[in-house]
This record gives sequence, structure tokens and C-alpha cells, in this order.
Amino acid sequence: MTLRSKPREFDFADAYPTRLKTGETLSPRRDPVLWQAWSEDAPIGRDEAEQYDEKGYLIRKNLFSDDELKQLVETSDALRRSGNGIDAEDLVAEPDTDAVRTIFRLDRHSDVFARLAEDARLAGVAQFLLGDDVYLHQSRLNYKPGFTGKEFYWHSDFETWHAEDGMPRMRAVSASVLLTDNSKLNGPLMLVPGSHRTWIACQGATPQDNHKTSLKQQKVGVPSDDTIARLVRENGLDVASGPTGTVIFFDCNTLHGSNGNITPDPRSNAFFVFNAMSNALRAPYAASNPRPAFLANREPPRAIRTRQTSLTDA
Amino acid sequence: MTLRSKPREFDFADAYPTRLKTGETLSPRRDPVLWQAWSEDAPIGRDEAEQYDEKGYLIRKNLFSDDELKQLVETSDALRRSGNGIDAEDLVAEPDTDAVRTIFRLDRHSDVFARLAEDARLAGVAQFLLGDDVYLHQSRLNYKPGFTGKEFYWHSDFETWHAEDGMPRMRAVSASVLLTDNSKLNGPLMLVPGSHRTWIACQGATPQDNHKTSLKQQKVGVPSDDTIARLVRENGLDVASGPTGTVIFFDCNTLHGSNGNITPDPRSNAFFVFNAMSNALRAPYAASNPRPAFLANREPPRAIRTRQTSLTDA
Repeated sequence: MTLRSKPREFDFADAYPTRLKTGETLSPRRDPVLWQAWSEDAPIGRDEAEQYDEKGYLIRKNLFSDDELKQLVETSDALRRSGNGIDAEDLVAEPDTDAVRTIFRLDRHSDVFARLAEDARLAGVAQFLLGDDVYLHQSRLNYKPGFTGKEFYWHSDFETWHAEDGMPRMRAVSASVLLTDNSKLNGPLMLVPGSHRTWIACQGATPQDNHKTSLKQQKVGVPSDDTIARLVRENGLDVASGPTGTVIFFDCNTLHGSNGNITPDPRSNAFFVFNAMSNALRAPYAASNPRPAFLANREPPRAIRTRQTSLTDA
Repeated sequence: MTLRSKPREFDFADAYPTRLKTGETLSPRRDPVLWQAWSEDAPIGRDEAEQYDEKGYLIRKNLFSDDELKQLVETSDALRRSGNGIDAEDLVAEPDTDAVRTIFRLDRHSDVFARLAEDARLAGVAQFLLGDDVYLHQSRLNYKPGFTGKEFYWHSDFETWHAEDGMPRMRAVSASVLLTDNSKLNGPLMLVPGSHRTWIACQGATPQDNHKTSLKQQKVGVPSDDTIARLVRENGLDVASGPTGTVIFFDCNTLHGSNGNITPDPRSNAFFVFNAMSNALRAPYAASNPRPAFLANREPPRAIRTRQTSLTDA
């Protein structure tokens, strides 16, 4: 498949100022959502491409075999149990307990998840959506336990990636692979359809080492209640529930969050952020220092060569 | 309608010991759920009576006219805004903010809610289910705001009413009248069907003035995670979503809880607990002092004479 388009010449000046002293402002997105036209060669259907463009996300099911899912789930369970084999920097615990909530740089800690990151079903779709070669900006395993799973408040990932990581433009896509069944009751991902078309420049300066608290509870770089309410009123609210193996692709600027979870059913997913090669990180746009490497890959980007084979073919 | 049955002779010894030092124990419920057989005179259908008996709850819709709902919603909004006209004792705020979360003794603060408490659509159904005259054990207006609504952890109401209020037997029913539309995403009531048939005697002694913290976050008198997980695994999990005006009747021992709510949509309901006249409160079974009157009506019980007229007929 040769879907690469020549990257546009970017103006790397700050296209999306944020963390403003003057207050929150809303403006139209300045970048495309779908970076190339759909064609017969695309790895997703025309209706899927249109839906991604319109809503800012795409939910795909039944992409993996039972054997592949079994291996992914077993590997994720083993990774969480063997937390002591993983650098402390790559681990985040629940606010009130020591339970592992997140393992960063997932591709470094597991061969099968490294293969998943390069799989055509994820990276190939990302290449198509972004119209460019892609590299891995961030990867992680998320685990929200039953009974005590905490909420993730509404946010646009791009706001943080731009402000604190120096991602120039909205040319990145996340792929979340569900590793548990997600009902509407166990804290599933909620998305505001169409919200990706509005840039919300947030109020407030970035504190030093903001990521040390923002990973547990984000306080800077979140939209105001009034703005969230207005966007939900205008666009509705969608929920990415589905069985294990469901994949949610969502644009870097789509407003999303999740409720806490008192049900006994945990929620887990593997999360990969693909950034366009032409959109590699620069200096942070609204923070004094860039965040550490486990949150934002600042190495010279390496374009992913996508794999077409089964995940179980080691 | 004359559905009263002669109350059985009760043994007022402690039929349900709880707050045990030795640990949590599970045993079968010792009381009926449906306290009389269904007949043509009953205010609910035979299938509804069977469902209540089997699951421990019953969800009824379209009971109220648009005018009635409008008056209930407007009155609840006014009550929350005019909080300063209500005794501080009858108000509970959200843990992290000052927003009104609960107004107790709702029937004292509003004529229309006083009429609702005596309405045949609520109190008449309670009389039938409990096979006795009924009185109001507790009433309250609950309001869970959008964005920051906190979870209510799993619990059986009867466990607290027995331990701390001295309610002898499982012969009480709650009626929750939804005053907002409840989706599955804005922290709706979740129930474990069939859980009402198991008595979970909880571990741990009751702290002095436990209600001062337990109303915000209950820590004593809640089942263990293992027990909740087992009951959900065996019985599933149900959610009482529905439009404004939906009424959920649930047995005093049905395990229930609700997730937090980051959506912009608040959740509100009017909550009435009907207790059988024959089941009036005695001394607390597992606490040194009874809870205050706003939580548990300890006055000589007054049997409700049900009203058949519209709520809007003042």
C-alpha cells in the first residue's frame, strides 16, 4: 500500500496558543481531520472514513482472532502482575491504592504489544488517516480496576501534547484496543462527536512538572464546564462500549473522558498514539520543559513499517 | 382498596445480627419479599408483582402527567436554590463543593412532595407489596450534579436501617421518582437482581455518629468486594435508567449503588421509604444511639391514607 502523501509545508509557529492568562477561547480547527481522500486502496471503508472525519473517531470490531485476543489479555495480566520488573517511571498507581493503573512505553515491555503497535490494523489505519508515515508518540496499558476505578475528566489530548510536548499540529491519532469487555457501566470511554473541529484554548499557566499530578487528576488544560456542556448539548455524547478486541481510533483533538467504576468489572485497554512523521515534536508551546520520554517520544522519529502477519506469529 | 393483611407476630429479637467482629457472613433472608399474594385488586400487574418478588425491584414508567412532572421538577429546582430556608440538619452538600446533594424530610419542605409521598401510585403500591399499612420512614430529594457527581458505593439500605435505626425486619420498600432523565452514563441507580434474598451481615463496629460521614461516603456496613463480585457474577447487574417520572420500587435489602458522573447532565430523584406499620423502629440493633429524625422517623408511626387525586390538585 502506498498511501503516503507529500507532507504539507507547515508553519511551525504556534498554530494553537493555549494555557492563556486571558481566559478560555474557542476557535475552528486549522488542520484537516482526514489528511487524504478515501480510495479503494484505503484500509477502511468509505463510510468509516467519512464517520471519522465527521465525528472525530471510529469504532472497529472483530479485527483480531480469538488466539490473538487471548495472547494480548494474558500478556497484559502478566505485565501488571510483574510490575516490579518495570521501571518505576513507566508505572502509575491509582490515587488511593497501589494498584497499577498505567504502564507506559508498552512496546518496550512486551513483544506482542510491540507487534500490535506496528500491526497494519492499527498503524496502517493511522497512516491512511494522517496521510503520512507515522511513528509512535506514546504507548501505554491502562487498567481501571473494579470497585474503585476513578474518573478521567474531559480533555483533548492534543491540548496537552501541544502545550507540554511541543506537537505542532493536529495530525495524530490514538488507537485504543479494549482488553476487557466494556459496558456502559464500567467506566467506558465517552466521546463528544464533532468536538475535534473546535480548538479550545485553555486558561491557566502550566505548573512545573505538571505531569506528576496531571496523570492522576488533570487540573490545567481542561475546558470549562460551560464549554463542555455546550459542546455536549450541540453534539450529543457517545460511548465506546464493546467486547474485548474492539478498537477505537480517535483524533487527537476529540474531547473525551470516562466515569469512575464501582462495578466489579475492571476496564483495561492498550493505547497507542500515532503521530505523522511530518509532525514530530518541537519545543513545548506552553511549558518550560518538555515532559519525560515515557509520555512523549522525543527521539528522532522512526517511521513504522507495518506488519501484515498475525500477532501470534512471533 | 383494602389490601391490609393482619401483621404476623414478630419476634423482635435481632433477626439480622450485623457489624460483627468475627467477619462477614451470608445467610438466606428470613422474611417474605412480597407480603401478600397478588389479586385482581392489586395496584400493579401480576407480572410486576412476580418481578418484584424475584428481582427485588420494579421499574414503572408513565405514571404521571406532564403537568405533574413539570410541577415536581420546578419544585425540586426551587428547593435546591432556596437551601437557606431549610434547616441545616436537613441538607447534605457534595464532598468537595457546597452544592446541595440531599434535602431530607422532603415532605416537610414542600406541599407537592408531601402529596407525592401519600399518592396511591407510590404509597398504595407500597401497601400492597408490604401487605400492611405503611408510614414514611425517610424521605429526601437527591441531586447529583453534572461534572463532579460522586459515586455511591454498593450497600443494602436495610443493613443500616437495622443496625443504626432499629428497623426489625425486611418489610420496607423504597420508591425513587426520577426528576431528570437518567441514561446509563450519568450515574444511574444500579441494582443487583436477586441480591435481596441474601442477608449480608457486615464486619466492623459502628463508629459514634457514623451518619455524619457515612452520608458522604459509607465505610461501615458495606459488603466485601468478594461478596459483591460473587453476587454480580451470579445474578448480573441491572440499571434503572429511564425518562423523568420513572419510578423504581426496590426492596430494603436489594444491593444497589451508583457510579460518579462527569457528564454535564445532573441526576435527581425524590426518594421515599415506606415502612410497614407493624415494623416500626425499636432501639438500634448495632449502634449505641439511634440516628437523628431526619434520617429515620422515630415518631409514633402515622399510617398513610393514600390519595387518588392528581398532584396538581392542591
